[in-house]
Amino acid sequence: MASMRAAIFIEPNRIVLGEKPIPEVGPLDALVKITTTTICGTDVHILKGEYPVERGLTIGHEPVGVIEKLGSAVEGYSEGQRVIAGAITPSGHSNACLCGCHSQDGAGTRHGFKPMGGWRFGNTIDGAQAEYLLVPDAMANLAPIPDGLTDEQVLMCPDIMSTGFSGAESGAVRIGDTVAVFAQGPIGLCATAGAKLMGATTIIGVESVPARMEISRRMGADHVVDFTKGDVVEQIMALTDGRGVDVAIEALGRQETFEGALRVLRPGGTLSSLGVYSSDLKIPLGAFSAGLGDNKIVTTLCPGGKERMRRLMSVIASSRLDTRPLVTHRFKLDRIEEAYDLFAHQRDGVLKVAITT
Amino acid sequence: MASMRAAIFIEPNRIVLGEKPIPEVGPLDALVKITTTTICGTDVHILKGEYPVERGLTIGHEPVGVIEKLGSAVEGYSEGQRVIAGAITPSGHSNACLCGCHSQDGAGTRHGFKPMGGWRFGNTIDGAQAEYLLVPDAMANLAPIPDGLTDEQVLMCPDIMSTGFSGAESGAVRIGDTVAVFAQGPIGLCATAGAKLMGATTIIGVESVPARMEISRRMGADHVVDFTKGDVVEQIMALTDGRGVDVAIEALGRQETFEGALRVLRPGGTLSSLGVYSSDLKIPLGAFSAGLGDNKIVTTLCPGGKERMRRLMSVIASSRLDTRPLVTHRFKLDRIEEAYDLFAHQRDGVLKVAITT
Amino acid sequence: MASMRAAIFIEPNRIVLGEKPIPEVGPLDALVKITTTTICGTDVHILKGEYPVERGLTIGHEPVGVIEKLGSAVEGYSEGQRVIAGAITPSGHSNACLCGCHSQDGAGTRHGFKPMGGWRFGNTIDGAQAEYLLVPDAMANLAPIPDGLTDEQVLMCPDIMSTGFSGAESGAVRIGDTVAVFAQGPIGLCATAGAKLMGATTIIGVESVPARMEISRRMGADHVVDFTKGDVVEQIMALTDGRGVDVAIEALGRQETFEGALRVLRPGGTLSSLGVYSSDLKIPLGAFSAGLGDNKIVTTLCPGGKERMRRLMSVIASSRLDTRPLVTHRFKLDRIEEAYDLFAHQRDGVLKVAITT
Amino acid sequence: MASMRAAIFIEPNRIVLGEKPIPEVGPLDALVKITTTTICGTDVHILKGEYPVERGLTIGHEPVGVIEKLGSAVEGYSEGQRVIAGAITPSGHSNACLCGCHSQDGAGTRHGFKPMGGWRFGNTIDGAQAEYLLVPDAMANLAPIPDGLTDEQVLMCPDIMSTGFSGAESGAVRIGDTVAVFAQGPIGLCATAGAKLMGATTIIGVESVPARMEISRRMGADHVVDFTKGDVVEQIMALTDGRGVDVAIEALGRQETFEGALRVLRPGGTLSSLGVYSSDLKIPLGAFSAGLGDNKIVTTLCPGGKERMRRLMSVIASSRLDTRPLVTHRFKLDRIEEAYDLFAHQRDGVLKVAITT
Repeated sequence: MASMRAAIFIEPNRIVLGEKPIPEVGPLDALVKITTTTICGTDVHILKGEYPVERGLTIGHEPVGVIEKLGSAVEGYSEGQRVIAGAITPSGHSNACLCGCHSQDGAGTRHGFKPMGGWRFGNTIDGAQAEYLLVPDAMANLAPIPDGLTDEQVLMCPDIMSTGFSGAESGAVRIGDTVAVFAQGPIGLCATAGAKLMGATTIIGVESVPARMEISRRMGADHVVDFTKGDVVEQIMALTDGRGVDVAIEALGRQETFEGALRVLRPGGTLSSLGVYSSDLKIPLGAFSAGLGDNKIVTTLCPGGKERMRRLMSVIASSRLDTRPLVTHRFKLDRIEEAYDLFAHQRDGVLKVAITT
Repeated sequence: MASMRAAIFIEPNRIVLGEKPIPEVGPLDALVKITTTTICGTDVHILKGEYPVERGLTIGHEPVGVIEKLGSAVEGYSEGQRVIAGAITPSGHSNACLCGCHSQDGAGTRHGFKPMGGWRFGNTIDGAQAEYLLVPDAMANLAPIPDGLTDEQVLMCPDIMSTGFSGAESGAVRIGDTVAVFAQGPIGLCATAGAKLMGATTIIGVESVPARMEISRRMGADHVVDFTKGDVVEQIMALTDGRGVDVAIEALGRQETFEGALRVLRPGGTLSSLGVYSSDLKIPLGAFSAGLGDNKIVTTLCPGGKERMRRLMSVIASSRLDTRPLVTHRFKLDRIEEAYDLFAHQRDGVLKVAITT
Repeated sequence: MASMRAAIFIEPNRIVLGEKPIPEVGPLDALVKITTTTICGTDVHILKGEYPVERGLTIGHEPVGVIEKLGSAVEGYSEGQRVIAGAITPSGHSNACLCGCHSQDGAGTRHGFKPMGGWRFGNTIDGAQAEYLLVPDAMANLAPIPDGLTDEQVLMCPDIMSTGFSGAESGAVRIGDTVAVFAQGPIGLCATAGAKLMGATTIIGVESVPARMEISRRMGADHVVDFTKGDVVEQIMALTDGRGVDVAIEALGRQETFEGALRVLRPGGTLSSLGVYSSDLKIPLGAFSAGLGDNKIVTTLCPGGKERMRRLMSVIASSRLDTRPLVTHRFKLDRIEEAYDLFAHQRDGVLKVAITT
Repeated sequence: MASMRAAIFIEPNRIVLGEKPIPEVGPLDALVKITTTTICGTDVHILKGEYPVERGLTIGHEPVGVIEKLGSAVEGYSEGQRVIAGAITPSGHSNACLCGCHSQDGAGTRHGFKPMGGWRFGNTIDGAQAEYLLVPDAMANLAPIPDGLTDEQVLMCPDIMSTGFSGAESGAVRIGDTVAVFAQGPIGLCATAGAKLMGATTIIGVESVPARMEISRRMGADHVVDFTKGDVVEQIMALTDGRGVDVAIEALGRQETFEGALRVLRPGGTLSSLGVYSSDLKIPLGAFSAGLGDNKIVTTLCPGGKERMRRLMSVIASSRLDTRPLVTHRFKLDRIEEAYDLFAHQRDGVLKVAITT
């Protein structure tokens, strides 16, 4: 049995490049040779022991690659095809999937729903930071890359773009909306781009790192508010002339940003939350109009599946958005430990790293 | 200038029946002679000084009556017509109204949105617990009572039914849904009825007062869970075979019920909140799946306006629902202070009182 | 290789009970022993040669039965379980499924969408009027029957209830709506029941057969209009006091009913079409307000998949609706040709027949 | 009583510039001094006698101007303010408005709904091609022009942009959609721009006039199909690789374009119709998948009201779209008859004319 290199979670604070057997391909699977992948903020949570996964697991959920081998029951693809798969890999056949809630796919569970059930790569099964990746339910998940797009052009599709855009989509941004996006990391930047793509006419980014403030404008922000230069809520209220925003997108996962997002909503507005929280949240009575403000709080887990990937890649292919500026650093898989070190410490202005094999 | 009797907020813990001039009728107003009204839990908050209104204000927002006089610009009605008006009286012309957010009507404000702006009766203008009520923006708010319906049959429409139903509507209850309703007071009971009307097939009421548990079943609950007899979340999870509910409706306004509602949601489920909260809320991390559960939290303020009232009265007229069992006590306006005393202390199994003139 | 009896399409006007081999079970399939099935109006179209299928095909798409054998890759079920499957059997993994359009599943096609692609039983693969049925994509399609429900209680779920209800669902019926349902055959009757389940408060059935008019009232109609007793549009306009209906459901598939449904819509109303048409349709200019009436015309193909079936069976299990009155005649599979004869000629007041093995 | 000049419909084929009294201002009205207006295709229908209006009516429904006088009950505005009003002027208080169907406002009618009821300017009351315009229900309809925008920059908002955008909005265009827009006149061009603003990634314009094909690309089309150079349906199917489009927008009002739009839809796709038709329409059986394609046909009348206008002007103010290229010719009101002549005969590549006073 041939072996391959993979970034393996050994124990908190240790993800190392090790050797693993190349996976066997079951009837519904596909084996993908990874050509490019990346590291996500969630992977850093895993590294730090803040999000529990089993020891020995290969990390990573953002694959770009080439089909190496198809399961016996997989139709509609051919070996050698360039593909991506979403970070979330719905089966398509669970009750959750069949009612449109693909990210909460609990195929195999008693009721067909499971919180975060669709997130398998680098969470419940081996992930993408390796030479090969086994993609389960391949027919639901493999999305061919359109001709002419490079790996780096589509590298943000599996998670960053899908999650970021979903902040605007779940917020139901409409033409003419005012939208605030709290935090302009990779996901917040894609939320900004998503809000612009959906027709928001005033987009306010919240950020303090100058390089991120700059890229925020390039991704679509009309204004960028620096939270170190004064109260964010006051600044946004001033920018909106006291009206507040139609949609506030939370893209960090902290009480301050969640609360700020709630406080800047106009009556009837929507807080669209993308953050992964690590502690209880507080909803201040006033910010919530005592429950009488016709407000919504909506959370979204990264939408996956091949149709989602097809749509996101069409955004890139049609030049509506270029996410390559988010890739600030490049490493070979051999040096992935170094990449983790850089990314986990957010050194050198890193936004996203590209890991190639 | 003729005078009338009215229930007036004097100071915390004192609402008294006093004399006031019968209001002047402006061009867009209508003067309605009240025939029946009622007292709301919110009025008790006002009485206790927990919700601030100006001293001297007439309380009450649930009017049933007869048109006494129409403003000079009001068309489409005739004096002597029996009508109701919703608790919330949208102008129809604010930016909030024009984008469908009628309860947050901020007509006259700079931006056209105002939290709870559509709630005027007994809040920012004189209310319905009086012999006469001035209805602003009459053309948007007066709804003729269908022939053959008594005052008591439509008495729950202005607030209780409208709010209760909106719990199911904002939760987007679908055929085949499982719905839990936390607290079976008048609004929770109407939420139960609303969930049934929209096709929920498993409805679980949460209550501990035996009389309310009994009426809950009559209003549509398939199961009623007594929170004094064991952990509510566990009981609901057992009833749903571990699956959780599609929609949980909060109808009390407390941390326990809000949190319980969150904890029983299936992944992807919606918490529809109707309660008027009086302190900050906590969202426990686990109950919120760390923000990754594709959950929604939706708050709704009682929908008003004549079209809403027309629809609710059609529910009564078509015998889809009879809300008369909610009226447990009857008083003449003369004895409204006694009614407040009974209602505020929730004595004698009171659900709602009818106040007639 | 064992053989079984099956109702086979030989040529136009000939469906005969013949012998076929019991199907082989592929990895994703399940073999279901049919205990009860029925004949659909669509099967009569096939019989008459009006809808083309391949000669030699087993007809029928409404299976109730017991799992005989599971494919090697099928998890979550056990042999001997009582199950139904929807008339439409989505794969779950096509692009159509992944964007929520399960009935147009074109798995295996180039683009993942195919008109009516999800309808396979008795259309593109062997159907349910046989001793055994091979269910493809079993994990997406097998729905266990809740304990205590008989075959006849769930027999309408695979098609009749699913299609009928979808008329109300696609019409987005709301509490307080006025709904007209054109034709009260089995599907129209279920559309009536669906409109009631979703909160319509005035439901008008259109029918002329007295027995169907009677059952229409039992299924939820407040009024039944006899189109042989005067102009339907005038009658409905009179019943609605000139207002028109919010939603008109077409459940026959003819120009007259389509046009009548369009003509009774209020401005802004929705025509929800369920009929299978057999010729071009005309949209009269006036009925369409020259395109300026903010109207919608929505068509729906029977929703399938196990989650849909689970929900529909919960309607039965919770006693929200009893569809047994639709089953007017019963036959053994041996006598299915006789059943076709009765049903095709609509003799003896037949609504639906139950075919048992 | 002072008089003013106005473009008056005398009889079919005669709209002349005449004299009329400046209107009296009722309590809810505002008198607006028109600074710029334009001529719509609908006005040409009126001119030709194809759309009936009363003789003596002032034509025009696209006003840009300055508040001259406010009605006694109008609050929130000041004289001298620069404003626009939508072509459709909802009252805000009808049943239609209160359920979100503002364009079908039947205020004053028995049921509150009326087909095209919200279209009053130049249809049921005097219109905008005059020195002064009386705006009814001023508080619902006057939208202040943001500082820095010229008349010509906002001249398309009252009708052309509002209608065109609504084609994409009613079609519920989503990120990644493929959209075809049939006809690239002013409304079709704005539909193209609207589809782009909402995130469509493949936009196909259908047109044959070279200048319009060119501007179509500037407004957002990725491809422009010339229907004189081959079958439109085939061309679009080729461009979409056989898949069809998610949304097809009809922007002409003819059988050919309606039918073409239907034929290029993917299963489950939506035809969003903006055209004003002048004869019955035919739905070909095959194009409609016999009613089984899960397709929608949606019609939309130009959305109006001040909130709509505010949002559209924010699109201009934020530089998301510049509609000035649509204004190809300019005339003084004095020469409006000449403008009609040019526009009605579509001479000299005219798209829209600006009429100034």
